[in-house]
Amino acid sequence: MTCVRTIAETRCHVAEARRTGLGIALVPTMGALHPGHGVLIDWARRPADFRVVSIFVNPTQFDRREDFEAYAINLNADLEFCAARGVDLVFAPSAAEMYPVPLSTRIEVTGLADHLCGPFRPGHFQAVATVVAKLFQIVAPDRAYFGEKDAQQLAVIQRMVADLNMPIEIVPVPTVREPDGLALSSRNARLTPEQRAAAPILYRSLERALQSLAAGSRSASEVRQTALEVLAEIPPLRVEYLEVVDAATLAPVETVTGPVLIAAAVWLGATRLIDNVAADVRP
Amino acid sequence: MTCVRTIAETRCHVAEARRTGLGIALVPTMGALHPGHGVLIDWARRPADFRVVSIFVNPTQFDRREDFEAYAINLNADLEFCAARGVDLVFAPSAAEMYPVPLSTRIEVTGLADHLCGPFRPGHFQAVATVVAKLFQIVAPDRAYFGEKDAQQLAVIQRMVADLNMPIEIVPVPTVREPDGLALSSRNARLTPEQRAAAPILYRSLERALQSLAAGSRSASEVRQTALEVLAEIPPLRVEYLEVVDAATLAPVETVTGPVLIAAAVWLGATRLIDNVAADVRP
Repeated sequence: MTCVRTIAETRCHVAEARRTGLGIALVPTMGALHPGHGVLIDWARRPADFRVVSIFVNPTQFDRREDFEAYAINLNADLEFCAARGVDLVFAPSAAEMYPVPLSTRIEVTGLADHLCGPFRPGHFQAVATVVAKLFQIVAPDRAYFGEKDAQQLAVIQRMVADLNMPIEIVPVPTVREPDGLALSSRNARLTPEQRAAAPILYRSLERALQSLAAGSRSASEVRQTALEVLAEIPPLRVEYLEVVDAATLAPVETVTGPVLIAAAVWLGATRLIDNVAADVRP
Repeated sequence: MTCVRTIAETRCHVAEARRTGLGIALVPTMGALHPGHGVLIDWARRPADFRVVSIFVNPTQFDRREDFEAYAINLNADLEFCAARGVDLVFAPSAAEMYPVPLSTRIEVTGLADHLCGPFRPGHFQAVATVVAKLFQIVAPDRAYFGEKDAQQLAVIQRMVADLNMPIEIVPVPTVREPDGLALSSRNARLTPEQRAAAPILYRSLERALQSLAAGSRSASEVRQTALEVLAEIPPLRVEYLEVVDAATLAPVETVTGPVLIAAAVWLGATRLIDNVAADVRP
């Protein structure tokens, strides 16, 4: 495995892999790698693909400075993690390599960013779309792997790729969970023991919403209420949003008539956790 | 020469050319090809390059419906034009091929689009940047050729390519002029004989501005005034803007201290003409 810091070196290694007939698979990350990333890397393990992991804590996508500063990564640990999983190339650029001058260009995906996390994280999805587009232009992958835990990010990137005709297959990878249901996230490490013990309630609330749908409820506000009642069991937990949205547009629905996503963001102390589940009802 | 209508066929032909070791050169056009485009194609004539011309009258970049509707192209004539100049592939997609659904994604290049044509053509440069990004993703050229006549478009695209790390060399091609100085443009064909006779005044006014600089004037308003006096010789001509702007930022300057662009847009009847000249002063 090779680790490079520059765009030019990345292009060299990728071009060389292409010359030998390999496809290119990219797993974009912000480091602090955990077994959830491990599953993304496993999914990227096509026999004829050259596996690239990018590690870049993109400063422009953090709407809160504290969150960016808390995002401590340990590059050596991440490199060991990648090497052990058969990654071929790690691209770990500095902020100056990615942003030698402040960007004038931004990519906006309208509509999809208007709901869920969008209103609470102004500029976030525009910054994500822009940095992912940059990584795509640098690595030129045939396939790129994104976790379903970040469902809105996944939807924004799928739309950007389709709209701009990027010749890249976006592969969604199912959320990886702890045995108690908590979705893996780098932010889980910031939870106190008490918060960590409480955190699985988020997924339990979404499961309760699924049960309400399975039991025949079609009213989004009813489904939502069921889930919110579960979250209310942990008083210090603050709900940022919990919505039942159309799976394609991510806009809230009143009545569930087809594929939906039930998605939530909650705060435990200073840590924000998100999660979501997909559901469909047959008419 | 081959002409294809679909993105998939374009990618096939380009991939085949790449397999044989050729580089890819792209000349993006809106058809209605004239000798100005011919020079772009000539510049794209590297011996080891596969030459692609795209012909697409992008509906989203027209801020006025009349202008879009007046933009009549004759595909057969354009294909003959390309064949005679050694083009390898013409990509002439339908609007439905480029926009199967309305786009949610847009690329904005802030700052550069704020001056000159920007305020008069709301949304224009965003639509241009977005469609050019699509063409770049479809054709994946190594080099793309743009005329300096559309200086602001060129600047927007150069910035987008740099900001998004697109692996493409943007080659600026000097403006081609009629013997009387009028810059070649598909829109010239819409001028009445009287308007056509008056049109060279636009370039003459810019030349006068250059003379004023050469004579030692460093005041942008003085330089501007000199040019405007020339344009006033043709009373029916309406000046939309005439500005002395920084060559890098395209923002108006007060004093000329380095590379500038003197750029103007004027109306002759229902036809809008633009032109520009570059200048530099040594301190």
